Amino acid sequence: MKNQIRVFAPASVANVACGFDILGFAVEYPGDEVEIKLKDEPGVVISTIDGDNGKLPKAPDKNSVTVPILSFLKHYRIDQGMEIKLFKKTPAGSGLGSSAASSVAGVFAANILLGEPMKQEHLLPFALDGEKAACGIAHADNVAPALLGGFVLIRSYHPLDVVKIPTPDQLYCTIFHPDLEVRTSDARKILKKNIPLKDAIVQWGNIAGLITGLMKSDYELISRSMEDVIVEPIRSILIPGFDKVKKAVMETGALGCNISGSGPSIFSLSRSDEIAKEIGEVMAEQFKLDDVSGEFYYSKINNQGPKVITQDEDEIL
Amino acid sequence: MKNQIRVFAPASVANVACGFDILGFAVEYPGDEVEIKLKDEPGVVISTIDGDNGKLPKAPDKNSVTVPILSFLKHYRIDQGMEIKLFKKTPAGSGLGSSAASSVAGVFAANILLGEPMKQEHLLPFALDGEKAACGIAHADNVAPALLGGFVLIRSYHPLDVVKIPTPDQLYCTIFHPDLEVRTSDARKILKKNIPLKDAIVQWGNIAGLITGLMKSDYELISRSMEDVIVEPIRSILIPGFDKVKKAVMETGALGCNISGSGPSIFSLSRSDEIAKEIGEVMAEQFKLDDVSGEFYYSKINNQGPKVITQDEDEIL
Repeated sequence: MKNQIRVFAPASVANVACGFDILGFAVEYPGDEVEIKLKDEPGVVISTIDGDNGKLPKAPDKNSVTVPILSFLKHYRIDQGMEIKLFKKTPAGSGLGSSAASSVAGVFAANILLGEPMKQEHLLPFALDGEKAACGIAHADNVAPALLGGFVLIRSYHPLDVVKIPTPDQLYCTIFHPDLEVRTSDARKILKKNIPLKDAIVQWGNIAGLITGLMKSDYELISRSMEDVIVEPIRSILIPGFDKVKKAVMETGALGCNISGSGPSIFSLSRSDEIAKEIGEVMAEQFKLDDVSGEFYYSKINNQGPKVITQDEDEIL
Repeated sequence: MKNQIRVFAPASVANVACGFDILGFAVEYPGDEVEIKLKDEPGVVISTIDGDNGKLPKAPDKNSVTVPILSFLKHYRIDQGMEIKLFKKTPAGSGLGSSAASSVAGVFAANILLGEPMKQEHLLPFALDGEKAACGIAHADNVAPALLGGFVLIRSYHPLDVVKIPTPDQLYCTIFHPDLEVRTSDARKILKKNIPLKDAIVQWGNIAGLITGLMKSDYELISRSMEDVIVEPIRSILIPGFDKVKKAVMETGALGCNISGSGPSIFSLSRSDEIAKEIGEVMAEQFKLDDVSGEFYYSKINNQGPKVITQDEDEIL
């Protein structure tokens, strides 16, 4: 039995233009890392949280990395002690699925250390417990792609119905995380409770087009479908200069450019590593014109989800 | 050059559960037949309309079979005379794309007789002129599948963006056309102009699921996704006994059962010819309990669209 492991779980982009609350995808970079060491004495403790500026709770029943682990141990009626180190490399409150990355990393690591009693895709309900602890709502559009990799459709929440969407081999994502604060709860509050039927029709035409484009590897169709007529027009007012940045990004050869999750991060899809990098530079330049600083990331779409970084094969004494 | 042709164009099912205004598919049966004979003297005339109970206009600028032909001839600045015979085998006002079948048959036949100057898929704008003449609105969700065959997504109307969706090889449709009158304009009027965002999210989760299920040949996913929370709850009140019929159909092994277009016809998808037939019988039995008579049709999904029945190779003198 292994007694120690370090894993990575990816950041993710939820909503994806026209897929509000039902679509998300994982990226290769950034993501959170979690180290778990089995202990002889029972109890799950967080010994270290790195990179959170002291903001995250260390109580295991409050932190999104440990809540899924506690649920998992409870499910199996196991009283295994664990010492957890969390390395936050996904900025919190960024719209990049930071809590989902921690939740997935935690339960993914614990499952391996306990001999993989459960298949990876079945860990979703536990990871959702972590998301709920962090956000108050168990939204699956970050957790599911972080766990399963690739593009994931949440067809339904009641019952939970999660479907992985095949995507083109060459698909890249650029993310810009501006130094702005947008609280998920605020971003949700400003949305209208009722929307015009005619706009909803445009939106479901686009989500159907996006899914078809991804599955057919039809980049032009993906690009034409990456339009959000419901949420983006409202939420983008929270992101200074969004329209100008989007225009510049599209002129760089992006397939689309939209808000990531509830923001303030924005993302763009493109066909190559080179364009993805160039888009990041354009995002940074354009935001700078509005005195908004920030950081950009680019990578291929992550089709694997979480992964093991190192593991210790030593037997527990 | 051919001087005479008889063609078939299929009926179609629009909306398809969760795809209101953006999705439709064609069936093998029923459909309209159109015969065109080239004439030496200019002018397009309808000499016969069979099966319409005398209800359709014979004026070429009013009938959906000839309006697309007139548009087509005008586009090419051709003054070719034609004599048209229309055999209506798709019941009008049934929610089965009756006018779309005529529109497609007309322009499909004319294009062939004139030496196929245009590819089949490019005939769509002309066929839409016919739909507009019949319905007042150029909705493409019947015309596009009738012309292209299979499942067709209308991703966008402005600009028109039409995408064919790959589907499972074994996919069957049953249609029941009850002897009830529901006018498309009435069926549209009773819809609400605004809908709750939370319902719209359910709907676009379902349309994304339906597209994914069709493209993956995942029948279970198709079935789970064939739910309409926006339009069906309102429109089904115009169809006596709808809920009971639907329940009985689902118990017969259907993948789904919903209103076809704006009704009153209903349709069901299933995995085999046998089940499709049984569903038709169940539909007829159940409607009879509510004193509603009608007719049922079943066939495979039509992946071809319109087809030539007979053609005359004689040269025009």
